[in-house]
Amino acid sequence: MGQPPATGSIAELGEFGLVDALAALFPTGPEVQLGPGDDAAVLAVDGGQVVVSVDMLVEREHFRRDWSSASDIGAKAAAENLSDINAMGGRAVALLVALGAPPELEVRWATDFAAGLAEEAGRVGASVVGGDVTRADVIIVSVTAIGRCEHGVVMRSGARPGDIVAMAGRQGWAAAGFAVLARGFRSPRAVVDAHLRPQPPYLAGPEAARLGATSLIDVSDGLLQDLGHIAAASGVAIDLSRGRLEIAEPLQSVGAALGVDPMEFVLTGGDDYCLVGTFPAETALGESWRPIGAVLDGPAGVVTVDGETPEGARGHQHFR
Amino acid sequence: MGQPPATGSIAELGEFGLVDALAALFPTGPEVQLGPGDDAAVLAVDGGQVVVSVDMLVEREHFRRDWSSASDIGAKAAAENLSDINAMGGRAVALLVALGAPPELEVRWATDFAAGLAEEAGRVGASVVGGDVTRADVIIVSVTAIGRCEHGVVMRSGARPGDIVAMAGRQGWAAAGFAVLARGFRSPRAVVDAHLRPQPPYLAGPEAARLGATSLIDVSDGLLQDLGHIAAASGVAIDLSRGRLEIAEPLQSVGAALGVDPMEFVLTGGDDYCLVGTFPAETALGESWRPIGAVLDGPAGVVTVDGETPEGARGHQHFR
Repeated sequence: MGQPPATGSIAELGEFGLVDALAALFPTGPEVQLGPGDDAAVLAVDGGQVVVSVDMLVEREHFRRDWSSASDIGAKAAAENLSDINAMGGRAVALLVALGAPPELEVRWATDFAAGLAEEAGRVGASVVGGDVTRADVIIVSVTAIGRCEHGVVMRSGARPGDIVAMAGRQGWAAAGFAVLARGFRSPRAVVDAHLRPQPPYLAGPEAARLGATSLIDVSDGLLQDLGHIAAASGVAIDLSRGRLEIAEPLQSVGAALGVDPMEFVLTGGDDYCLVGTFPAETALGESWRPIGAVLDGPAGVVTVDGETPEGARGHQHFR
Repeated sequence: MGQPPATGSIAELGEFGLVDALAALFPTGPEVQLGPGDDAAVLAVDGGQVVVSVDMLVEREHFRRDWSSASDIGAKAAAENLSDINAMGGRAVALLVALGAPPELEVRWATDFAAGLAEEAGRVGASVVGGDVTRADVIIVSVTAIGRCEHGVVMRSGARPGDIVAMAGRQGWAAAGFAVLARGFRSPRAVVDAHLRPQPPYLAGPEAARLGATSLIDVSDGLLQDLGHIAAASGVAIDLSRGRLEIAEPLQSVGAALGVDPMEFVLTGGDDYCLVGTFPAETALGESWRPIGAVLDGPAGVVTVDGETPEGARGHQHFR
């Protein structure tokens, strides 16, 4: 962490540098079991353990009203936050939502948004316990998830050389959908829907905790980038097997139609909120989880594919 | 609550109508001890009781960077949310913060903001356990407070005819400060500072719970308006005694200088985050709390001053 630079813009520092600079200033009391830097924080409150996370979505940065319905936006805002609790091996108990909106927004939009949020929360049995509405020039959604980890907390930092790297859920679909939408198309519907309405594998987080996962993260910014967080936090290297990374049919069609290697969607695409984690080598992974690579005793934070560093971007760069 | 209107803008519906319309759509599970509609929600998580609240602040709607320093904005964002837990009779244990900001923002602004937030959180011993940063055209701050109510939860709905109405903390100072700033002045410093950096009475919430308060709220939108929420939720009327409402010296100076009745600041001003509550008649109030009126068996939601309905606005109208 260290001392933040006194001059320069937050764009120059970058999202992760900024988060570190801010976190260094925050007080940490005895109730904090896990502070900033993982998918969620863990608190001891009134004798119970509580897992909490927040995300902010801004119109035009994270969603477009001409692409996404109000219900889609509500569902995605919920999914992103439910996923943060999933990525700790837990289940969200409740969501709080703050909505900034222009005064001329239709009431119908707001109620459709709330219905989408409620529907997604219902998938894990989470309640929506209120929030705040305020005036803003564009739509801004901030969702806080409050959850619990019945089978223990799984952090990013426990991966050990020799562990299996495994994935649960779809990966690359939302990126393929975004590529399609960005070029003005609305099909294949399956990938467009994946972008508009992610389907995080909500059962896989608690299952990973039960299976004894040594680390866990959800893929919001890109598989390589998010696995890089595990590798850095754990002080290990990770190698993925290209042959284990499934490229589903619609990703292949989109790749062919757009002249893009569909493996790019899988390696660098975000917004599917699949889970990746590491497990002791002897773990019987079960149905949700499929092996995609291995943890190595190599340079901390490095992620390779078949032993080579992939070319190009690693994933979404905030503020860039 | 009932069915929300299918057409029309959220401005026509108003903040409270919108909140009700959204809350009616939200699922409520067995972990919810108190859902939307009070200063915070109350959850049962992992055997403990947790009190949670969120607020969103938007640049130009809630603060101006030419009036407030980064540190002021951080402190105020924290104060507003710490106050929500105070208004349940509790103490905040932790804050989560989501920050939207333009990429060209100076790192120094962000770290000063975080320092102000951290300093205010430190006043009640709350930790700051992380959050989210994202790109936005203006600065947007969403803070979530997580707390506990050691002496029991005090809601808005328990006021009974015959109870004392009492206040803790300053009221009207921030509104006087806003009036001064809005006219281009920067003094009297005491009221300007009160607007920029509120001083909620953080000890008074838990004290009210200990004293057996029957209802409690913090004044964020105006004394009459926020007492109206208690009166409506409790099904009672409230009458304030003008002679009990202190008009401190700087409010008198500002009123005289601007040609405004300073009682207006006290009755309709927001942003001081003082507490008002109701207590059984026999309660020995102690030092923090001073009586300002009485709960009456009258029309639900009505707030009068010396038996009369005050003229003019009741407080801040969001979306108007």
